[in-house]
Amino acid sequence: MLRTHTCGELRKQNTGEEVTVSGWVQRLRDKGGMVWIDIRDRYGITQLMFEEGVCEPAVMEAAKKVGREDVISASGKVVDRISKNDKILTGEVEIRVRQLTTLNKSKLPPFLIEDETDGGEELRMKYRYLDLRRNPVRKNLEFRHKMMQQTRTFLDSKGFIEIETPVLIKSTPEGARDFVVPSRMSPGEFYALPQSPQTFKQLLMVAGFDKYFQLVKCFRDEDLRADRQPEFTQIDCEMSFISRQDIIETFESLTRHLFKTMLNLEVDPFPVMSYGEAISNYGSDKPDTRFGMTFVELNKVAQGKGFNVFDQAELVVGINAVGCSEYTRKQLDELTDFVRKPQIGAKGMVYVKCNGDGTFKSSVDKFYSQEDLKQWSNAFGSNPGDLLLILSGEGGSTRKAMNELRLHMATLLELRKKGDFKPLWIVDFPLLEWDEETQRFHAMHHPFTSPNPEDMHLLESDPGNVRANAYDLVINGVEIGGGSIRIHDRGIQQQMFKALGFTDEEAKAQFGFLMDAFEYGAPPHGGIAFGFDRICAVFSGQESIRDFIAFPKNTSGRDVMIDTPSKISVDQMKELSIKLDLKQ
Amino acid sequence: MLRTHTCGELRKQNTGEEVTVSGWVQRLRDKGGMVWIDIRDRYGITQLMFEEGVCEPAVMEAAKKVGREDVISASGKVVDRISKNDKILTGEVEIRVRQLTTLNKSKLPPFLIEDETDGGEELRMKYRYLDLRRNPVRKNLEFRHKMMQQTRTFLDSKGFIEIETPVLIKSTPEGARDFVVPSRMSPGEFYALPQSPQTFKQLLMVAGFDKYFQLVKCFRDEDLRADRQPEFTQIDCEMSFISRQDIIETFESLTRHLFKTMLNLEVDPFPVMSYGEAISNYGSDKPDTRFGMTFVELNKVAQGKGFNVFDQAELVVGINAVGCSEYTRKQLDELTDFVRKPQIGAKGMVYVKCNGDGTFKSSVDKFYSQEDLKQWSNAFGSNPGDLLLILSGEGGSTRKAMNELRLHMATLLELRKKGDFKPLWIVDFPLLEWDEETQRFHAMHHPFTSPNPEDMHLLESDPGNVRANAYDLVINGVEIGGGSIRIHDRGIQQQMFKALGFTDEEAKAQFGFLMDAFEYGAPPHGGIAFGFDRICAVFSGQESIRDFIAFPKNTSGRDVMIDTPSKISVDQMKELSIKLDLKQ
Repeated sequence: MLRTHTCGELRKQNTGEEVTVSGWVQRLRDKGGMVWIDIRDRYGITQLMFEEGVCEPAVMEAAKKVGREDVISASGKVVDRISKNDKILTGEVEIRVRQLTTLNKSKLPPFLIEDETDGGEELRMKYRYLDLRRNPVRKNLEFRHKMMQQTRTFLDSKGFIEIETPVLIKSTPEGARDFVVPSRMSPGEFYALPQSPQTFKQLLMVAGFDKYFQLVKCFRDEDLRADRQPEFTQIDCEMSFISRQDIIETFESLTRHLFKTMLNLEVDPFPVMSYGEAISNYGSDKPDTRFGMTFVELNKVAQGKGFNVFDQAELVVGINAVGCSEYTRKQLDELTDFVRKPQIGAKGMVYVKCNGDGTFKSSVDKFYSQEDLKQWSNAFGSNPGDLLLILSGEGGSTRKAMNELRLHMATLLELRKKGDFKPLWIVDFPLLEWDEETQRFHAMHHPFTSPNPEDMHLLESDPGNVRANAYDLVINGVEIGGGSIRIHDRGIQQQMFKALGFTDEEAKAQFGFLMDAFEYGAPPHGGIAFGFDRICAVFSGQESIRDFIAFPKNTSGRDVMIDTPSKISVDQMKELSIKLDLKQ
Repeated sequence: MLRTHTCGELRKQNTGEEVTVSGWVQRLRDKGGMVWIDIRDRYGITQLMFEEGVCEPAVMEAAKKVGREDVISASGKVVDRISKNDKILTGEVEIRVRQLTTLNKSKLPPFLIEDETDGGEELRMKYRYLDLRRNPVRKNLEFRHKMMQQTRTFLDSKGFIEIETPVLIKSTPEGARDFVVPSRMSPGEFYALPQSPQTFKQLLMVAGFDKYFQLVKCFRDEDLRADRQPEFTQIDCEMSFISRQDIIETFESLTRHLFKTMLNLEVDPFPVMSYGEAISNYGSDKPDTRFGMTFVELNKVAQGKGFNVFDQAELVVGINAVGCSEYTRKQLDELTDFVRKPQIGAKGMVYVKCNGDGTFKSSVDKFYSQEDLKQWSNAFGSNPGDLLLILSGEGGSTRKAMNELRLHMATLLELRKKGDFKPLWIVDFPLLEWDEETQRFHAMHHPFTSPNPEDMHLLESDPGNVRANAYDLVINGVEIGGGSIRIHDRGIQQQMFKALGFTDEEAKAQFGFLMDAFEYGAPPHGGIAFGFDRICAVFSGQESIRDFIAFPKNTSGRDVMIDTPSKISVDQMKELSIKLDLKQ
């Protein structure tokens, strides 16, 4: 070992010991007859002290020559420090160095290796191995490791067993786009990388494994948004002989265990909310419930008074921004600009100020009397000093816009507090979504989701109104997990494929093995999958998943550090029986 | 929950309780007024009892109709069993069933779901979800899960952190063939699947992560032998600021921890053997040391007596098969046939029987006197009753053949005992191997392996004689892990690439990012990787890794259950800018 201790380990009680530490040069102070070097590793920082007359002149000389990020090893005696540093745990001591070895020199790094760096995203990604030396990034990966360990420990203790499913599987056109892998041994054929181990975990249930989990890499060849990665990690789980309630209880315990062990938090039992309720109260199936501002529908009280915009709207809906009646013209204009942005899509916004004196001031005073506005205020249960913000139009898009406005207001009012966690379950999703483009139904979760037993009779006559036996876990406005009770009956699975517009042949070619398996004693089963990168980010109160991934890709799917994807040789392609087909 | 208890849980003390169990029908005995059903899940088997007059006629009727592998749920009272079954833990009780639900019917399985099945390999793989219901296969996966948990728990306790490295990486021509993934967003370019996370784990050391591990899928597009899989799992590890001895100690502790927790075995400290010693004593760099029969070289005593075959041989070498002097003509002929098989490749075999009366009988009595043979016997230290088996020829191939003969004899003599574990470290491998075909050196481990510091000066003048700072862990003749101290200096890495015949441009194009990283403070580091599938098999005393993998591929790289690789659509290929290039 090139060290007896790490750089985070030495304390007052080590005083007098002969030690060796190794690490990176964080900082150097040269006062002529004295030199101090801060040496860093992933455990902390220790101060090295070099004193003329105490260490050999050659060592003194060497100390003066070290540069930032050089890798060095230093031996000497632990001594009491004269000016203590109470910001770091090793701050009471320093090492009086006798021997110094430079293990490797470093060029000047392209950006500062400090908590606040001057390196832009692109530079940081190109030199990710330097970026990873920074405390905030390093801590994220340590957090992730601990989260993985805790997840596994909990699930193992509940009798789940982790089973690895294959990465080289079969391409299916359903769902997102697959990454494919040409097969050399079967010319003209391809493997696909799994978007999830869905069918395999169901087969494990047929195999009797009863409680399965896996922390597993999944792949989707989609156009990437800021917060998506072509490869991502899932906590993938499946259980047999269970109901929806059993899944909810089991994975609420897992989440609670993670809150407790990772953040030392006890969280209230998670409420269960129906999809319909979430949409009508929050305009979103992943509501942030850290704050109120739930939607109030005003059709009854606001229509029929001659204000055309409202009268013609399918929906008039508002929120109450408590204590905001003093908003200025400028602030209100900014809110209107916000809702009019193309990605929000509202045409305008109506406001009502509930003045301190009990009167009302609105942007539609022309159409509504004080008495009318009083009725609105009653509908909201608002008080003097509050501000009502109202949108109108087609139901779906208006709710979506209102959801954005609600979140925006909460951000302005600092109601989305870090460290405050409000998990909830969303249930009773629609089973199917009508797709205008392809003129057919799509599965809202996936084609293996079981219909709610009460709605089974509607599957042929009124498929759009069938509820799914599905559930999502939402925390602070982020969907961190979702799943369903699965179909385990060949007949129902066939009916489902039919509802989704599969011919029998297509269904058989793609999922024949699963439907066959259902004929050999498939138990009732269901499961859930958590986005692991995301759960790490949400628990840490961070927005981006990128810094919880050691080597992420950029939004073009490129690893700029190793510079890939990249060209391969013609021979390689020939062996795989493929050639390029580039557009001219 | 569709059960209150599993099928492996009920004991005498549960007598009188009302319970529900769910599982698969293992067996049915219908005695008219009484029916017994054995119900099975992954935890065990419980006997259900149906008695006329006790349960409803409809339930009795239903019980008589269940078939093998149907999924059922049964409720009733736990009662004392009249004829106990002491072979199973639930054998003292049975459930007097009041209610029975068939959750799903099963067709007749294509093979017996029993410990000894009548299903051949191909059929078992096609219906892998049924094969996995069999105890021996299920237990292997449970063993694997526990092994993963124990590995993680141990490494976590030693301060290692698990970091996921990317699956979509860059193709490099060095080493085995890569699987590649065409990129849609970068037309004409490809990702590759990792053969190992080698460069990434080294970058994590440059990043200061100091103790890394990962249980990780790796991929090699090689022609598959019985015991190879295109995707396999590694325990991948790397450490900084360490010497070879530190690695050996750390991973010997891990292995010892696994022996203790998985098999309740305390194993002797692992001997360290040089590559040279392994080759000259065992003819193999992965010797099975559960038994002796080490090689004895006979050149001195056997040459120059007029036996042309020996006189012209580079090497005359033998083993002593203790107690085998009574082997018959037929047995000896079989041994000769064995060594002559093309995959062994010897031309013939010489034997010497050390008779009980102190005389010798050999197949070369024409050339050697009793006195000569006495000298041979002394060289072996053999006793009356022993049998000496001798091969000769070119050194390398003769040692290989002798190795096979030694293992074959040990198998015949039942010296390769299950449950006996003899781990050892092999060190001081050659750094480079000369490849006749390409007329250049290849890295014996990989191009990142550090030369032994003592041999550094030979790297340019005599590269073939440089020893690597590398180590393998061998157990019972199987290499289960290997690794090395790495190069961490850009200059030496460049020299290494040069010795391997890379031009500067090639080295830069493929590994520029790593050599760049070495200039920003790369610490001394090294690591090891264990074949996880293999370590599971070796610990379980089994030959094949296949049954430790839930869904393995066959030797054509095909998953016969889901029937892949398979065709993809022309549109899919078009999106990826590739087309097929099939040979006519």
